[in-house]
Parts: sequence; C-alpha cells; structure tokens
Amino acid sequence: MLELRFDNVFEVLNTDPESFARRGQLKTAHGIVETPIFMPVGTQGTVKSVSPHELKDLEAQIILGNTYHLFVRPGLETIKKMGGLHSFMNWDLPILTDSGGFQVWSLAKMRKITEEGVHFQNHLDGSPTFIGPETSMEIQAGLGSDIAMLFDECPPYPCDEAYAERSGELTLRWATRCKEWINNNNPMAGESSHKQLHFGIVQGSIYPSLREQSAKGLVELKFDGYAVGGVSVGEPEKEMIAAVDNSVPFLPENKPRYAMGLGTPAQMIEMIARGIDMFDCVLPTRVARTGTVYVSHGTLNLKNQRFASDPLPIDEECACYSCRNGFSRAYIRHLIKSEEILGIRLTTLHNLYYYINLLERARNSIECGEFEKLRKELRENSKKK
Amino acid sequence: MLELRFDNVFEVLNTDPESFARRGQLKTAHGIVETPIFMPVGTQGTVKSVSPHELKDLEAQIILGNTYHLFVRPGLETIKKMGGLHSFMNWDLPILTDSGGFQVWSLAKMRKITEEGVHFQNHLDGSPTFIGPETSMEIQAGLGSDIAMLFDECPPYPCDEAYAERSGELTLRWATRCKEWINNNNPMAGESSHKQLHFGIVQGSIYPSLREQSAKGLVELKFDGYAVGGVSVGEPEKEMIAAVDNSVPFLPENKPRYAMGLGTPAQMIEMIARGIDMFDCVLPTRVARTGTVYVSHGTLNLKNQRFASDPLPIDEECACYSCRNGFSRAYIRHLIKSEEILGIRLTTLHNLYYYINLLERARNSIECGEFEKLRKELRENSKKK
Repeated sequence: MLELRFDNVFEVLNTDPESFARRGQLKTAHGIVETPIFMPVGTQGTVKSVSPHELKDLEAQIILGNTYHLFVRPGLETIKKMGGLHSFMNWDLPILTDSGGFQVWSLAKMRKITEEGVHFQNHLDGSPTFIGPETSMEIQAGLGSDIAMLFDECPPYPCDEAYAERSGELTLRWATRCKEWINNNNPMAGESSHKQLHFGIVQGSIYPSLREQSAKGLVELKFDGYAVGGVSVGEPEKEMIAAVDNSVPFLPENKPRYAMGLGTPAQMIEMIARGIDMFDCVLPTRVARTGTVYVSHGTLNLKNQRFASDPLPIDEECACYSCRNGFSRAYIRHLIKSEEILGIRLTTLHNLYYYINLLERARNSIECGEFEKLRKELRENSKKK
Repeated sequence: MLELRFDNVFEVLNTDPESFARRGQLKTAHGIVETPIFMPVGTQGTVKSVSPHELKDLEAQIILGNTYHLFVRPGLETIKKMGGLHSFMNWDLPILTDSGGFQVWSLAKMRKITEEGVHFQNHLDGSPTFIGPETSMEIQAGLGSDIAMLFDECPPYPCDEAYAERSGELTLRWATRCKEWINNNNPMAGESSHKQLHFGIVQGSIYPSLREQSAKGLVELKFDGYAVGGVSVGEPEKEMIAAVDNSVPFLPENKPRYAMGLGTPAQMIEMIARGIDMFDCVLPTRVARTGTVYVSHGTLNLKNQRFASDPLPIDEECACYSCRNGFSRAYIRHLIKSEEILGIRLTTLHNLYYYINLLERARNSIECGEFEKLRKELRENSKKK
C-alpha cells in the first residue's frame, strides 16, 4: 500500500508570539493555499450568485463544494463525465469537499444511522439514498476535489455524553474504513496533479475527554489535515470555543487545522488565535441575500429606511467591485427590496470581499507581529453589534 | 415657447432597396444610438441579473426603464435625490423610459380611466395612485431619461372599434397635454447634455383608419420620434404586423420609429423590413430564467434531459461571456434546475448577446445590401421551431 502524499503538505511560515496563531501554506493539486484562509461555500457547484471570474477577482484561493448536494444533484456520474468538479464548474483553483455527514444530519429525511453508514431520503425527491464511509470517499474521489473530508457522524447540540461517546467511536471506526478505502483505491494516484488530500474530523460534542479521544484516534490513523467538527450547530459561542480548545492540543503542529462552518469575523479571528488555519461559512453569502453587509465597524442592514437616499457606497474604505464602482446604498437597497438579482450580487461580492480580505489582514498581521492588534479590533467591533 | 431639440435627432444612413429597412443614427444626450437597435429592458432600474459593466461588454447601446415601476418603487423623489436614473443605476449610456400607460393597464388594480388620467391601486401595496399625461412627463423628466414616451391608453386585444376610437381620441388629447407640459416646463433644458427627446405612441388597435388617424394626429403635434403601441398585447402575429403596416406609412421618414414590446428574432427582422428602427422586449431575459436559449437555428431548452452531460457551450458559434468561457450546457442545466443565480446570469447574458448581435447583423446587412438574405435566414429558422 503506497502512501500517496506530497512532501510537506503544510508548512508553517510564521507564528504569533502571543497566541497560537500561525501563518502557513497548504499545497494542493491545484495550487498553494495561503493560510489562515476563508473558503467561500459553493454548495451546488457554484458560490451563490458569483461567477468563477468574480471569485478570482475577489482573490478567493480555495472554495468548498458539498458532497451531499452534488451527489443528489446532478449526481456523481454526470460530474465524472464532465471531467470532475473543477471542469464541471469551470474553476481551476483548489476545491475542498465536505464528506456529506453534516448535510445528511441537517437536510435529509428519515435518516437511519447504522454501523454500515447512513440510509436516508434525499431532500429533493425523497428517494432512498445511502452514504457510508466508502461511498463518501468514492464520491469525493470522483468529484476530484483537492481536499476530501472523512465521513463522520455530526451529533446534534445538545447531545448527552453517552450518545456523544458512541457517536465518536462510530466516527473513528468510519475513519478507519475511509483510510482503508483510500489505501486500497489510491484515489487519483499516479499523476501528482491529481493527488487528493484527506482530512479527519474531530467530534466529541462538548465533552473534553471525548474531543481528546477523537483527536488522538484520528492522528493515529495519519491524515493530511484535521478538522474540528460538530461546531456551529446551534451551541453557544462559549461551547464552540471550548470545543476547539479541547481539540487543537491533540492535533499535530505540522498539519493544517480546519474549523468547520465558522463563523463571524470575530469568531474566525479568535479561532486563528487558537491555532486554526481554515474556515468555511455560509454567513457572508446568506446574510447578503437579505441586505446585511459587513463594514469596518460591524454590519449594516441595507433594507433599513435610513439608506433610502444614501448616496454612499456600502463602505467607503472598501475596494470590492460594488464599492469601487459607485453603487450606492440607496440603489442596492432598492434592488434588494425589489428582489432583483443584481442586489444580491453586489452585497454578496462585498461580503465575500470582506471575509477574504479580513483573512488576508490576519495573514499579514501574523507576519508582521500585529495579530493581537487585529484581534482586539475585531473583539471591539463585535461588542458594538 | 422654445423648441428644445437637437438638429437632426435622427439620420438615415442607408436604406435597403428591397424593403423599408433602414440603417440610421439617433442622437441622444448620452450618446449616439445605432439603429436598428434592440433595447434590453431594465424594468426596476436594472436589466434583470445583469450589471452595467456586463451590459457594456454586451455592447448594449441603450436600455429601457419602466416609469410605472420606478414611480411606485423607489419613487421619483428618491431617484431625483440620487441625481436621476442614470446616476441611480450607474449607467451612463442612453435610457428610454416608457410612459407608464402600458403598466397601468397590465399591472395595476382597480384602474379607473378618466379624461384627467388614470386612478389605480399600485401592484405592490394597493395604495391609490394617479398618473396622467402631465404626471407621466414630470416623472420622466425627473428620471432624466434620454427619451420619454408620451402617456397613452393602451387598449386591450381584442377591442371593439367604438372603444378603440374613443381610446385613440383620448390618447391624442393626452398627447396634446403632454406637448403643452413639455413646452411649458422645458424639461432639462439649457444644457445640451440634459435634453430629453419625446416620442408619441400610435394607437388604434387593429383598425387601419384609427391607426392612420392616430399617427397623423401625433405627427401634427411634432415629436422627436414615434412608436407603434398596442402591439404585443396578445394579438396574433398577423395583426401585429398589420398594425405596424397601418401605422408606418403616416410617420415621417426622418424620425425614428419604435415598435413597443417586440418581439421574437424573426418578428424584429420583419419589423425592420417595414421601417421600424427600435425594439424592446422582455423575451430574451424572461425565457433565459427558465433555461430557454437562442442558438443559430432556433432555441434550446437547457432543462431538457438530453443536455444533462452535454459538454458543449450553449452555442459553439457564439462569442458571449458564457459561450466563450467554457460553461457547458450540462453545467448551466444543473444551475437552472438547482435555481442557482449563476445559471440565470449565464443564459441571460447569452440571450441578450444573441438579440444585440442580431440587430448588429441587421445593421451590417442593410449597409452592405444583404438584408434580404438575413430576413430569409430568420424566416426559415422561425419555421423550424
């Protein structure tokens, strides 16, 4: 069994002396990702309302695709026929695919979890579907993503300790099966341009010992990176932070760490301070669609009457497409209220720019020893809200 | 009373020897429009899903704004505060605004037509609203469009002759009042960059003598251009063509002619052959949103199963954003079926490109004496459908 890996998939370039924040590079088949990084979410093979060219203009370096959604529609066979997800969606930079575990939990109906995997009715037409560890790895290999996530069970919040323990053990057994599948199938082996990285997902709900157990079990199996899962599932922020604090110490320094589904700007910065390198979140794109935009000192809801004749751009200090081209708050407000697509496009581009730019600021601040300053700024902004 | 007009608002550059088709130039405050021209429809201050930059990339020369919609939301005062419609929507090329007459007829509830104007409940919140000839001209002057349409009554189809006659007479009396308002208020006079052109609208339903009477009455009042209205309101194509045939002979050669709300590609070419210079139509943008796209030999509905794994662009011969950037039919189909905005954007850009490019082909064909060839090609394509 060959170990098909890059040498030094991940390198830490700088560390912050006052926190666990680090500046790194993650090497993937479609290019290097500068970390810490925010990954825009492209659930159904598109970052909602945004074209691939616009994503490049935003300097997005990597995007996320949802295995569950793409498996249900248009289906693996279609995407394989089209040459994989990159070719299908016209995106030649890195893609991370999640495992489907979270969506099976949050979207599917009549879900039945067995040792084998999860039987469910898909959310589109209710037809019976199955995803297990091997299926998930096979789908992700077929999609051809640069980073594939291991299939896990994502327990709900709250969740009693007995359930969380059984679930964590199941996730570990599934991780072992994923590993076996990877070793036996060498997905996309041979050409270096097609190597796929695999990340394990730490579970364990709010229980420190279960988080430790999960992290240690995954690290023993050796993956290219590790994610903290089971966060951003409705728990209070304190629990979210504790879950990361209880997972990270058991993960290797020389592997990338990814906090799944996070978060607000301030939360991401707090997580970076705790040693997290990667983020994905629907927040900037989702709130954009109802007119909420990020500005230097918090957020604005452009639907508010006070913007009805406001000639200013969303944020005068911003260099996004919308702000640098003179689209006024008044106009964007009108478009959002009139349910016009251009309104969603302008707010989405702005919010993604804000997130991507914030992470660039984080990288720069770690490089020049000013991360604590940025952390303080974001903390104060979040209090103002 | 000053007559505030450009010298030679419209010039005919070439004529087709075998039809009434003509190649011309229309001079407006925001630039020259090459005719025959297709005007994308920007109902609510935006061409649905398309940004102003994309419109320029499409080589759109002039767009249409809807007075009724903009008056109801965001309202005239807001747009005036924002410096007019061009500034509000970030578009510095010509804009034509319709009069609101058609929308009052097709959208408003509890409509009551009096000599004074039209009382109605607007379609958004049902609040009582009034638009009369002077209101319409005042709104359009406030919007600052390059071309304002006179306020008319658009009779339904079918419509008995007695009603059509009374309606046509009312529209003529309203035209007289519009003219008076224009003369008394000199909308946007003084600076040449703010001059507004005014087009009368020929009505008369399907009755040749009423069309003649309407056209002659308007021409007597002297406007910058003339439109054929009351078409594309549900009548058979034969009646649509007859309405144009019964109006055009009474309109001056040296003024632009505009067929309102038309049409399919073949219909536009037939109308050009009858001496029409300007078109607007929601068809290319509306059908795009359900996956119908124009190709060299007709239309395709991308929702069709046969495109599920089709790697071709919408049209291999097309140079639109979507086709020249490798977006496949399979991918666009997936996006449209998944109700993803990018799908609508790609089909809309394609269809607008098709319409704008077809009109460019029409202009070129008139210039080089090959208009009949193009007319024959479109006629044959429309039979295939």
